Amino acid sequence: MVPQLDSYFKEVDGLQDKFIERLREAVAIPSISSEDERRPDVIKMGEWLASQIRALGGTVELRQLGKQPGREHLELPPCLLGRYGDDPKKRNVLIYGHYDVQPAQLSDGWATDPFALSIDDKGRMYGRGSTDDKGPVLGWLNAIEAHQKAGIELPVNLIMCFEGMEENGSEGLDDTIRAEAKRFFKDTDVVCISDNYWLGTEKPCLTYGVRGCNYYSVEVSGPGQDLHSGVYGGVSHEPMTDLIRIMNSFVDPDGTILVKGISDLVAPLTDDEAALYPPIAFTMQDLYQSLGSEVAIHEKKEDALMHKMRYPSISLHGIEGAFYTPGAKTVIPAKVIGKFSIRTVPNMEIHEVTKIIQKHVEEEWAKLKSKNTMKFNIVHSGKWWVEDPKHWNYTAAAKAVERVFGVKPDMTREGGSIPVTLTFQEELGKNVLLLPMGSSTDAAHSINEKLDKRNYIEGTKLLGAYLHYLAEEPTK
Amino acid sequence: MVPQLDSYFKEVDGLQDKFIERLREAVAIPSISSEDERRPDVIKMGEWLASQIRALGGTVELRQLGKQPGREHLELPPCLLGRYGDDPKKRNVLIYGHYDVQPAQLSDGWATDPFALSIDDKGRMYGRGSTDDKGPVLGWLNAIEAHQKAGIELPVNLIMCFEGMEENGSEGLDDTIRAEAKRFFKDTDVVCISDNYWLGTEKPCLTYGVRGCNYYSVEVSGPGQDLHSGVYGGVSHEPMTDLIRIMNSFVDPDGTILVKGISDLVAPLTDDEAALYPPIAFTMQDLYQSLGSEVAIHEKKEDALMHKMRYPSISLHGIEGAFYTPGAKTVIPAKVIGKFSIRTVPNMEIHEVTKIIQKHVEEEWAKLKSKNTMKFNIVHSGKWWVEDPKHWNYTAAAKAVERVFGVKPDMTREGGSIPVTLTFQEELGKNVLLLPMGSSTDAAHSINEKLDKRNYIEGTKLLGAYLHYLAEEPTK
Repeated sequence: MVPQLDSYFKEVDGLQDKFIERLREAVAIPSISSEDERRPDVIKMGEWLASQIRALGGTVELRQLGKQPGREHLELPPCLLGRYGDDPKKRNVLIYGHYDVQPAQLSDGWATDPFALSIDDKGRMYGRGSTDDKGPVLGWLNAIEAHQKAGIELPVNLIMCFEGMEENGSEGLDDTIRAEAKRFFKDTDVVCISDNYWLGTEKPCLTYGVRGCNYYSVEVSGPGQDLHSGVYGGVSHEPMTDLIRIMNSFVDPDGTILVKGISDLVAPLTDDEAALYPPIAFTMQDLYQSLGSEVAIHEKKEDALMHKMRYPSISLHGIEGAFYTPGAKTVIPAKVIGKFSIRTVPNMEIHEVTKIIQKHVEEEWAKLKSKNTMKFNIVHSGKWWVEDPKHWNYTAAAKAVERVFGVKPDMTREGGSIPVTLTFQEELGKNVLLLPMGSSTDAAHSINEKLDKRNYIEGTKLLGAYLHYLAEEPTK
Repeated sequence: MVPQLDSYFKEVDGLQDKFIERLREAVAIPSISSEDERRPDVIKMGEWLASQIRALGGTVELRQLGKQPGREHLELPPCLLGRYGDDPKKRNVLIYGHYDVQPAQLSDGWATDPFALSIDDKGRMYGRGSTDDKGPVLGWLNAIEAHQKAGIELPVNLIMCFEGMEENGSEGLDDTIRAEAKRFFKDTDVVCISDNYWLGTEKPCLTYGVRGCNYYSVEVSGPGQDLHSGVYGGVSHEPMTDLIRIMNSFVDPDGTILVKGISDLVAPLTDDEAALYPPIAFTMQDLYQSLGSEVAIHEKKEDALMHKMRYPSISLHGIEGAFYTPGAKTVIPAKVIGKFSIRTVPNMEIHEVTKIIQKHVEEEWAKLKSKNTMKFNIVHSGKWWVEDPKHWNYTAAAKAVERVFGVKPDMTREGGSIPVTLTFQEELGKNVLLLPMGSSTDAAHSINEKLDKRNYIEGTKLLGAYLHYLAEEPTK
């Protein structure tokens, strides 16, 4: 099947130096969306990307999003809405990516200039944005170019949505998706996002879900001002003592959630789903390496994977208002705010989760019989996202992986949230696939971010191959 | 008894404007010991004080203490060692005070320039150091001057020890006291320190004890670096979860200490001691006012006073290494350090206390069965101090209070520590008395620090009267 892929692959190999130069140019633009003074570079990056797409024959609108809410001295970077191909007989794939990057400077500990692509003898291409997410975005452009060189028509139409604020809250994106759901995006058949990572370094994966996150705070106050613990210790109710008791009530050291009613909301594990975990190319050694130590709760990889992907967890993040610097301070803080969050999974209804947690906090508070005052706050909440991994969007991608890499992909879910997946799912009502290019060692968001040449070049083949399998996959 | 006091009192009244000018001059020197750039002002203040004492006929050595340990670019302010009178037939009183002050600037919220004494129509004299501790130190000088004006000989010899680092750890003081215990201080019969406050605003007190403070930290670490709670929540042991459980094990919201064995160390309440609390001029309303709210644990003033003065307490101060700023961060901190302390009282042997607490922490830790690592640390420990309030040093002071104010003084202990009391007690083996001049509303260490004119002038009378009663009190 899909015999024309061979000549496409050959052209990708032949063009690899050009593709690396394309990535080098992109990395050189420091499009850091969270730094005011870099905002012009983000906008420049959007324009550079638009000109690359236009040069390949695509059409592009740089949709202006106005001022940044709350920071009105800043213009939001545009959302790039593009098309390549508009054959009504072809399927339409919406591809999403982002052209902004995390902050980076040499003094953070980078071995090389983060904005000058540097390739070592193992083919590791270091540079900010190399893997997150300039490499994957350019992968789509490379695929178009290699098709042109091979004289093969793209078998689907591409609808592009590339934003410039992903690393800064995706400001303006949801509104754009909502506004264009029945307009620019209306013909979309499936969505493909290349903006996450393989679980390891050898085996590609398809990602069909992410956990949600409800983030809460508990504020305890009492004294009119911070007190001296010598003068008032034993005399006053202390907000810290009360808060620590509340924070202690959520989770056991082995991760067991102690809030009654939460585990009842979790979808039972079916045999079908259980069968997805054992083949995943992941070992406890991989986990220890990424944790930087052997403090994993579970002994078996399947348990670790399921607790990352399909079970909820509660983490205690910190306390605002208490003493936090090195040294000693004999203070009784007057007001302290504990921060914690729960990662949610199917079928937890996230407002139901909040109700249960709030009730738990109020019951625990009542037990304290404290004269202090407690306030429960919802800081933010975002739903989990899960797709049917047997949808033809996934089977097409799985075939492409097998064709390019010779293995069946791991079927994975992410522990962390990728909110745009849910927005596309809810606003377009179409199947969404996460098809990563980079590997687990790429250090996105860290110093020395990199993308392996193999991942970039074979990843470009993968994206192109996916389009072909997508074009011919039965929708059954 | 002591009839010559009347003419002394008359001279104090007559000299009050001069005494206020003396305080104004002292306040104008911003002798902030914790700010590098103010160090010359601290030294200047020591020299100013020395010249004042010399002008009154005293002898002074400004003992140089060398460089500040750990901050060798700074010269320590000198310790003022002075004498007034050396009649071998008279008793010798060691008086201690300090001439440095807390930081202050108008922008902190002061209503007036903190270094320009400002007197309102109620006689409140605002200025940094007015009550802590320049007013009380100058009280001794005022007492000398008024005696001279009245033509009355001072009935005791004064041995002075005025330091310039009290607000910055009293660096160098303990060494000086130890070195001079058998030399400059060798003739000391009793020690008097005027550097604390009345419990309220109307009734003077004599303070015969302070609680000690043992400060600890518990460090929990595990992952090699901070982790993302989406990716690793439920998978990794979390240092915060473990630490919160440990911190939850020390104390109940009603202040009850949960560490087994601690309460057994506390001296039982005798009838004699119990009788000291009811007469104390202190109401729950006073407590609510100073707390800034009604979050007191106890309903009865005697209970509140005893928990401040004669029972231990444990306070949780904060956590280093966790998320502490406003907003939300989905972090699993890799290393967190919980800070807490216990206030100690007679007869708690402070090293025994540490042993018990460490054992408790280790037992609680073992229960967690966590793969994280825990370290228990002693940050600092300082013993409580208690004197016999029936010693002639106290009966003399009590008589002076009755003579000047017409009431019997409250017999109090401080909840917080004043380490120099213990050093004098241990190094000289002499009775130490805390004889405060200021009142509870003076806002030492806060903005708008003040000393009431009444407290300054009547306090000067009190210090002088104390010397007379001291001279004739039977030592029985």
